[in-house]
Amino acid sequence: MGERKTSERLSVTAPKGFLAGTARCGLKKAGDDLAIIFSERPAVAAAVFTQNLVQAAPVMISREHLRFKTHRAIVVNSGGANACTGEGGAHDARATAQMVAEYFNCDDSEILVASTGVIGVRLDMDKIASGVREATGRLSRKAGFHVAEAIMTTDTRPKRAARSVKLGDRVVKIAGVAKGSGMIHPDMATLLSFVTTDAAVGKEALRKALKRAVDRSFNRVSVDGDTSTNDMLAVLANGAAGNEPITKSDGADFELFVGALTDVCRDLAIQVARDGEGARKLITIRVRRAPNERDAARIAATIATSPLVKTAIAGADANWGRILAAAGRSGVKFDPSKVEIKLGGLAVARNGVGLPFNEERALEILKRDEVTVTFDMRQGEAEVDEWTCDLTEDYVHINADYRS
Amino acid sequence: MGERKTSERLSVTAPKGFLAGTARCGLKKAGDDLAIIFSERPAVAAAVFTQNLVQAAPVMISREHLRFKTHRAIVVNSGGANACTGEGGAHDARATAQMVAEYFNCDDSEILVASTGVIGVRLDMDKIASGVREATGRLSRKAGFHVAEAIMTTDTRPKRAARSVKLGDRVVKIAGVAKGSGMIHPDMATLLSFVTTDAAVGKEALRKALKRAVDRSFNRVSVDGDTSTNDMLAVLANGAAGNEPITKSDGADFELFVGALTDVCRDLAIQVARDGEGARKLITIRVRRAPNERDAARIAATIATSPLVKTAIAGADANWGRILAAAGRSGVKFDPSKVEIKLGGLAVARNGVGLPFNEERALEILKRDEVTVTFDMRQGEAEVDEWTCDLTEDYVHINADYRS
Repeated sequence: MGERKTSERLSVTAPKGFLAGTARCGLKKAGDDLAIIFSERPAVAAAVFTQNLVQAAPVMISREHLRFKTHRAIVVNSGGANACTGEGGAHDARATAQMVAEYFNCDDSEILVASTGVIGVRLDMDKIASGVREATGRLSRKAGFHVAEAIMTTDTRPKRAARSVKLGDRVVKIAGVAKGSGMIHPDMATLLSFVTTDAAVGKEALRKALKRAVDRSFNRVSVDGDTSTNDMLAVLANGAAGNEPITKSDGADFELFVGALTDVCRDLAIQVARDGEGARKLITIRVRRAPNERDAARIAATIATSPLVKTAIAGADANWGRILAAAGRSGVKFDPSKVEIKLGGLAVARNGVGLPFNEERALEILKRDEVTVTFDMRQGEAEVDEWTCDLTEDYVHINADYRS
Repeated sequence: MGERKTSERLSVTAPKGFLAGTARCGLKKAGDDLAIIFSERPAVAAAVFTQNLVQAAPVMISREHLRFKTHRAIVVNSGGANACTGEGGAHDARATAQMVAEYFNCDDSEILVASTGVIGVRLDMDKIASGVREATGRLSRKAGFHVAEAIMTTDTRPKRAARSVKLGDRVVKIAGVAKGSGMIHPDMATLLSFVTTDAAVGKEALRKALKRAVDRSFNRVSVDGDTSTNDMLAVLANGAAGNEPITKSDGADFELFVGALTDVCRDLAIQVARDGEGARKLITIRVRRAPNERDAARIAATIATSPLVKTAIAGADANWGRILAAAGRSGVKFDPSKVEIKLGGLAVARNGVGLPFNEERALEILKRDEVTVTFDMRQGEAEVDEWTCDLTEDYVHINADYRS
């Protein structure tokens, strides 16, 4: 019963007016590898895409489709990225959208398409077609819970998050799924995330809300836009909650909505970091008392993506010098001689110089499956959290032979 | 006999007028960990240092000393970086220079100091003092061959290179040593390199020659200036060869000298790449037909530092999509649909799209201990080679527990 409730609450079909279906078309070695999320009424959409110059066909097509006013569905496959596949790949992505649009009797442009998997291989369109048939045939509220599994590649766990927020006298729901999970920035495997909400929001307000949410969530897990060929985060808002529509990007309702959307994205982003390829630990890099947020974020990102820091934490080695050295090459001008570094609650360096510290206590802190590194600059008031994972031998195992 | 000849030819004391001595002071677990390179006559020096904001004490002191007109010696220790050690660390670096200067009866500023090892720990100055005494007591031409071992940390092999070049009627010799070997850019372990030459060169011409040599050697192994706290490459030129002094940064002699210096640096840089931590393969990234050298170098560096590319090559997996995706996030604007990618002599993608290729042949190429990836942009005439190594489980083993 508790299980059923959780699954209902966390499903992308928890917000009103959404259905979903999944299918196994055989692109992946096992499990479902195609999912469709459908809004019963026309929804407005916002999305962020990879900044990589090399863009997968579904990214190009979805970008194009996003110009349309309303959207009805997202179709996503795992087991093939449909990237670096030329004109043929673009044709395949369009054909996928078209199949789904035919089923729902809407315009092709009302469908967003996403893919993840190996780059450079054409999709088997017979498999996609059978998957679309099967997934549309199974559309239900209940099936929404399984979308999270259908989009997984090397993820070890499905990732779901949801929040509710009261806008006026209506409760608005927001729910999302995500998949990672190569996490060595700036060269991660594809990040995909899909968020549904029954809030009534204007398209432009939704775009601005998403940008703010992403800046403080996915852009803080070393998973920024300029990474894989396929990264995509899309949100559909269908207005079924009946709240007073949010049409401007200010005001109390807008702020409440942004807050809840940020919480969902942050929850998903942290799950992605924790499940990075080969990861055994979630690492939070907390930069405090920085001159400004921009500098804090740059320092946090540089520490969070340092292979030497990440391997040291994998080995529970309190090598704080690597943390300071990483900050030193971040490009931010600061005074190292003011900095204090803490592992969990244990100060290991102060004024840029090492402190005598209890190695056993450090070991105990670093052996936990959640480690917080605090980089206290003592030269301002800005604060930023960034999430990453440790770098283990398993990362290499996973990536040395990904195609087979 | 052949062995002796090689060791004489490759020694930093091969150029005329240089002596060297090494010692074991016990900073490292085994082997010599201190070396002194001495020029019998005042030499001019040029050096490049880390661009990291956090600079080790020896880097700060050597930078300061470099302003002096002439130099007599370089003293270097492994087993301790003397970085993030505050005022005390600066005092230790000065004291080391002073001990050496006293022995040679010269100004402290004529001594360059370098260190490598763990960050954040003060040097044991009693050990340094005994090392300096021992190394100065053993100064000889013959001992020069062993400097390469004394500066090693996680390197598995000493790195030496030498060239001769005829300037007028004189043969000028250039010899160098280097140590790596953490190689995941931009967060490598310390790179140190010391080059001696008996050429007569003006200080400013030497500086310009070194810059040109480094740009096409060490700066092409993902080991650029903005990395560790201790990176340092210094060259001493003592004029003992008696050539017509090179005082300008143009002319035939200058160009010949730059060519030979570049060859020495490139030889050393490739040895550093090949011996990257945990590396089993030397990888050459060859960007061809690029719009210009700057863009070519950016693309080459981005591919060379991609963990996903490096793990794929470690696993002999012909995952060319990762190569194209890495180039796509390099920040260079180019047309992916013109690009051809080759592994060794095997074309695996053309016009940005995968080709059918023989997987067995690809496996055979990728299993070799030297792999060349050619990224042929077909949109210009510039060409750049960049060197790196594969990323293996051993990298993680080495770095997860570096301090102990």
